[in-house]
Amino acid sequence: MTPAAPQPDTKTRILDAAARLFHEQGFNATGVSTILREANINPGSLYNLFPSKDALLGAVLERYTELLYPVVMKPVEDKTADPIDRVFALLQQYRDWFSPLEFRLGCPIGNLALEVADSHPEIRPLIQRNFDGWSAFVEKWLIEAGDRLPKQLDRKQLAATVLTVMEGGLMQARSSRSAAAYDASVAQLRTYFDLLLSQAQSERGSGERASRSSGG
Amino acid sequence: MTPAAPQPDTKTRILDAAARLFHEQGFNATGVSTILREANINPGSLYNLFPSKDALLGAVLERYTELLYPVVMKPVEDKTADPIDRVFALLQQYRDWFSPLEFRLGCPIGNLALEVADSHPEIRPLIQRNFDGWSAFVEKWLIEAGDRLPKQLDRKQLAATVLTVMEGGLMQARSSRSAAAYDASVAQLRTYFDLLLSQAQSERGSGERASRSSGG
Repeated sequence: MTPAAPQPDTKTRILDAAARLFHEQGFNATGVSTILREANINPGSLYNLFPSKDALLGAVLERYTELLYPVVMKPVEDKTADPIDRVFALLQQYRDWFSPLEFRLGCPIGNLALEVADSHPEIRPLIQRNFDGWSAFVEKWLIEAGDRLPKQLDRKQLAATVLTVMEGGLMQARSSRSAAAYDASVAQLRTYFDLLLSQAQSERGSGERASRSSGG
Repeated sequence: MTPAAPQPDTKTRILDAAARLFHEQGFNATGVSTILREANINPGSLYNLFPSKDALLGAVLERYTELLYPVVMKPVEDKTADPIDRVFALLQQYRDWFSPLEFRLGCPIGNLALEVADSHPEIRPLIQRNFDGWSAFVEKWLIEAGDRLPKQLDRKQLAATVLTVMEGGLMQARSSRSAAAYDASVAQLRTYFDLLLSQAQSERGSGERASRSSGG
C-alpha cells in the first residue's frame, strides 16, 4: 500500500489555479469565479485568505519568487556544473518549455510586467523581485566563471542582459509563433560570450607573460 | 493671414485616439465609447469605417507600420549618418521617449504582442510586420557598415537581437520605473559591438597582410 499523495491545502490550490489562469488569460481577463471553480473552493475560503483579487495577485507573485529556485534554477544547476553553460541551459529551458506551445502564453512574469505594472504600483516591486532574483542567479554564475571572463566585465550588467534576451526573444517568438528571433538572440549572445571568453584568455596570457618577464 | 491647419479626417482622428488609448490602457481595457468620445465622432462614423473593435486594432497596427519610418527611423537617420551610431541612436531614442514617463506605457507594439497575440491570431501577422520592419531597418544599417563588422557575422540575427534588447530592456524598465536594466543591456550590446568591430579590424589587417605577402 502506498500512502495517498497529500491533498494540496486550500491556499496552494487557490494560488496554483490563479497563477495558471493569470498566465493563460491575463490578470484582467480572469474572473474570480473561474478561480473558485478551478480551485474547487467556495468564495468564503478565498476571501478569508485573499481579501481582493489584487491581494491574490500579490500572493501569486510571491509564490513565483519562492518557486524561482526549485522550478527554474535548480533544474539548470542539476544539468551542468559549468557556470557559463548554465546561462545557455537556462535560455534553452525556456525554449523547451514554450516551443511545444508554439510560444503561446509567454513568460508569466513578463506578461504581468506589461499588464499590471502601470495600473498596480503596489505590485511592481513584486514583479521586480522576480526579475532581480532571476538576474541574481545568472550574476552568481558569471562571478563563478572567474577569470574565464574579462576582469573589467560588469557581471551584473551582463546578467540583466541575459534576462533581456530571454524576455525580448520570447516576446518576438510569441508574435511570430516561431523560435527564429529567440534563437537569433541567443546565438548572438553566444557569440558575445565567445568573444568575452577569448578576450579573457588573452588577458590571462599577457598576465602570465608579464609575470614571467618580471621574474614573478 | 495663415490658412488654418487642415483638420485630420475622421479616419485619422479615430486611429489616433484608438492608438493612444490602446497604448495607455491596453486593448481589452479600452471601451469603444471612450474612443468615440476622444475622437469626437459618432458611433455611425466609427462602424462605417471599422465594423468591429478588432478591425480597428488591425488598422491601428497598419498605421504603426506606416509611421515606422517617419516617426521612428527617420529621426535616427537624420541624427547621424554612421550606420553603427544609428543602432545606438535608435536605442537612445526609446530611452528619451520613455524616461520622462518613468518608463510607464512601454512599447505599444510589444504590449500588443503580449496582450493579443494569443487571443487574436489574425492580428499576429500585423504585429510581426511591425517587428520585422523595425529589424529590417537595423539590418540595412548593419549591412551598410560593410567590413567594419566581421564578414561571417549574421546581420539579420544581430538586428533581431537589437530589437530584443529594446523590448526586453523596456519591459524591465517598466517594472522597476528605472532605466537601469535598459541601460545595462544597451551597454552590453555596445561592448559586443566594440568586440565585433575590433574582430573585423583584425580580419582586415590579416587580409591586407595576406594580400601583401602573396604580392597582391
